[in-house]
Amino acid sequence: MKLISFVRKGQTSFGAVVLGGIIDLGGSLGDNVHSLNAALTTGIMDEAKLYIAGCKPEFTWSDVTLLPVIPDPSKILCIGLNYQKHKIETGRPDVDYPTVFTRFPDSQVAHGQPMMKPTFSDRFDYEGEMAVIIGRGGRNITQENALDHVGGYACYNDGSIRDWQQRTSQFTPGKNFPSSGGFGPYMVTTDEVGDYRQLSIQTRLNGKVMQDASLTDLIFPVEELISYCSQFTYLSPGDVIVSGTPGGVGDRRNPPVYMFAGDTVEVEIGCLGTLRNPVIDEPAA
Amino acid sequence: MKLISFVRKGQTSFGAVVLGGIIDLGGSLGDNVHSLNAALTTGIMDEAKLYIAGCKPEFTWSDVTLLPVIPDPSKILCIGLNYQKHKIETGRPDVDYPTVFTRFPDSQVAHGQPMMKPTFSDRFDYEGEMAVIIGRGGRNITQENALDHVGGYACYNDGSIRDWQQRTSQFTPGKNFPSSGGFGPYMVTTDEVGDYRQLSIQTRLNGKVMQDASLTDLIFPVEELISYCSQFTYLSPGDVIVSGTPGGVGDRRNPPVYMFAGDTVEVEIGCLGTLRNPVIDEPAA
Repeated sequence: MKLISFVRKGQTSFGAVVLGGIIDLGGSLGDNVHSLNAALTTGIMDEAKLYIAGCKPEFTWSDVTLLPVIPDPSKILCIGLNYQKHKIETGRPDVDYPTVFTRFPDSQVAHGQPMMKPTFSDRFDYEGEMAVIIGRGGRNITQENALDHVGGYACYNDGSIRDWQQRTSQFTPGKNFPSSGGFGPYMVTTDEVGDYRQLSIQTRLNGKVMQDASLTDLIFPVEELISYCSQFTYLSPGDVIVSGTPGGVGDRRNPPVYMFAGDTVEVEIGCLGTLRNPVIDEPAA
Repeated sequence: MKLISFVRKGQTSFGAVVLGGIIDLGGSLGDNVHSLNAALTTGIMDEAKLYIAGCKPEFTWSDVTLLPVIPDPSKILCIGLNYQKHKIETGRPDVDYPTVFTRFPDSQVAHGQPMMKPTFSDRFDYEGEMAVIIGRGGRNITQENALDHVGGYACYNDGSIRDWQQRTSQFTPGKNFPSSGGFGPYMVTTDEVGDYRQLSIQTRLNGKVMQDASLTDLIFPVEELISYCSQFTYLSPGDVIVSGTPGGVGDRRNPPVYMFAGDTVEVEIGCLGTLRNPVIDEPAA
């Protein structure tokens, strides 16, 4: 299944993308299940699959306002420096463990929504990444069992304000500006993805390929990321691990390339579709 | 006012600490105001003050199970390296901006609850700090107006798992183990605190003074922290800025000092009271 979060007629809901449109799953599978997060928590994905098999699309994409795939994850764990080519371009040393920082949910926008260049910076950069959405929670998850805890995968743009990221040792400020990251268009459930290593990832800025890699290139694969993160924090359904960006970020090009109002940035990952966002200037306060 | 979050008879609520006990404020000031976070959001602190002036304590401390002052902040922004003596002991360079990392709410425990030494590490360290609790939200808050956005202050122990913190450039894993940080016992509203710079902070391990400083020693004062953080993220009522720890952390002593089961750690800050936590081993899974 391809699952989206959206607002329709003022109501927040979630649904399945099918041929010709969307089936609303909010409230269809349980009284209190009105969000993808709640659907993952209550473990009703099998039920959802049966339900949509007998349904026709109820409305089209243009009838809804998309939200980030998971609008309000309790934890967004971002992995830095997880592709060799990117690690080399940043000049950072090898490390034996994943580099983990965090984003707040309000730094995310949906597919199609504008990503905002902050007023305070002219160094707004893209980072195409694959997001791993936790389906089953846990702590101290083994690498062997890790993929059983994945609900699905999606495209992510870990948009970064480079000067604010590099001001101190900690990345937080550069990774949390409002509407600086993209998450969408949908989550694809693991049964439809199969082996995530077979996916390739590409980031395009105004149609030009800027990043191009295979998910086999991850230094720390998804299994290891889940296992590692679950050792220091409990992972809950709907939590998101953003798995790192390939080489080719704008900030490390010569000359550097940054995103400005009028640009369009895309992250495409095989069967996970294409996350497309226009760039705008942050509105004046 | 001194305000606490607690559970009583299975119900989560919040209340005011008065002579002889506690006054329950949950539901007393508005139908949907059952948490300190909601009370801050709805801006009913003046009303609360009038309400408790006419009330007697309804129950005692032993009738409630304390929660972290704000049990579920949407953002916990922690400041690193914000006292000169601590920056020097870590060997880190001067920086022109605050160093910001994050904690997740489930890494916090209340006053009196055990802080847990993780199974995976023998380098569990204390960090006594003053927490600033946002009372009025905002973005791009000026330093001049910053203190108007503070709801109150509280003691915080930014408990740190040093090996996990130092494995890569990013602190996240070492700052987020379950029940590794303390937040309490209560929030003191700004009207009772006056000038926070007049406060002193002391951390004691088993009664021995380990950290001892004045809030005037902050490299980036509270006004600057609020202003800086509000430039990269929206601050909401109930959000917490943890303002940094003084020199004297266990990890930088010779020989190093760490916390183990059976220890008691205290953070005392003038009129903000004393946050006291026993240390236990993380239970086996």
